[in-house]
This record gives sequence, structure tokens and C-alpha cells, in this order.
Amino acid sequence: MKARIIVTLKQSVLDPQGQAIEGALAALGFDGVGSVRQGKIIDIELSDPADAETRLNAMCEKLLANTVIEDYRVEMVE
Amino acid sequence: MKARIIVTLKQSVLDPQGQAIEGALAALGFDGVGSVRQGKIIDIELSDPADAETRLNAMCEKLLANTVIEDYRVEMVE
Repeated sequence: MKARIIVTLKQSVLDPQGQAIEGALAALGFDGVGSVRQGKIIDIELSDPADAETRLNAMCEKLLANTVIEDYRVEMVE
Repeated sequence: MKARIIVTLKQSVLDPQGQAIEGALAALGFDGVGSVRQGKIIDIELSDPADAETRLNAMCEKLLANTVIEDYRVEMVE
């Protein structure tokens, strides 16, 4: 089975990478672009679907997300 | 309105970051993890919903994705 983990910075945390994208889009002439935030996705294939959600949450807590500054969400793809 | 852009490496392109995550998960004792691929998401707020999809695709082609090695998908969030 496949799962997708989405890791985003918490709203209260500054996102310089997003701000850089915002500036670059404006410089390229794209108008009306408000806030831009960047995050990451991690696509994982699991051979065993048992307890997948629990295991994926544990992976996020231990390795994939820094829960001090980041939020994560686990989505089952198939 | 808000849109989410998902940028992933093409399947044929090596993903060393994903492989590093795969190795780290195995070292932490998570079994049954197959291939791991990492990508990025960019959340953009647009003040004007007109032609949003066309403009977002243009942003991806010009700046946000390297279409030689990356695929992108545009999703309207709200």
C-alpha cells in the first residue's frame, strides 16, 4: 500500500523559502500572489497494511517531522 | 483563493533524499518500508480567482518545477 505524508511549517513559524518564492513570482510578473508557504511530501510504500496509520504516525513523530515547528498529515493513497 | 502545488521527481529520476529516509526508517526499526520518494508542496494564496489554473501552471513551468526532472500537479483547495 502507498501512503503520502504531508509536512508543513506551523502557521506561526516564519517561512523564508516561501517568502523567496513569493518575491520571485512577483519579479516574474505574476500579480495577485498572496502568502506562499512551502512544505514537503513523502510518499512511502508499505508492504504490510496492518496498523499502517499508527506506524506512519510514529515515523512522523520520530523522524519525518519536527513537531516543534511542523505539522504533519498522513493520507492513505491506495 | 488557495491552491496547492505538488512537485515530485519523475519516476525515472533517482531520489537520494528518499533513499536516505528509507535507510533511516530501517535503522529506526520500521520494517516493511518499500520505496520512499520525497517531493515538495507549495501553498499559494491568490487574490484573484480568474484564470487561476492557467496562471498556476505558468508559475510551475517558469519557476516552481524543473520539468526536465520533475512533475507537478495543481490542486485548488478553496
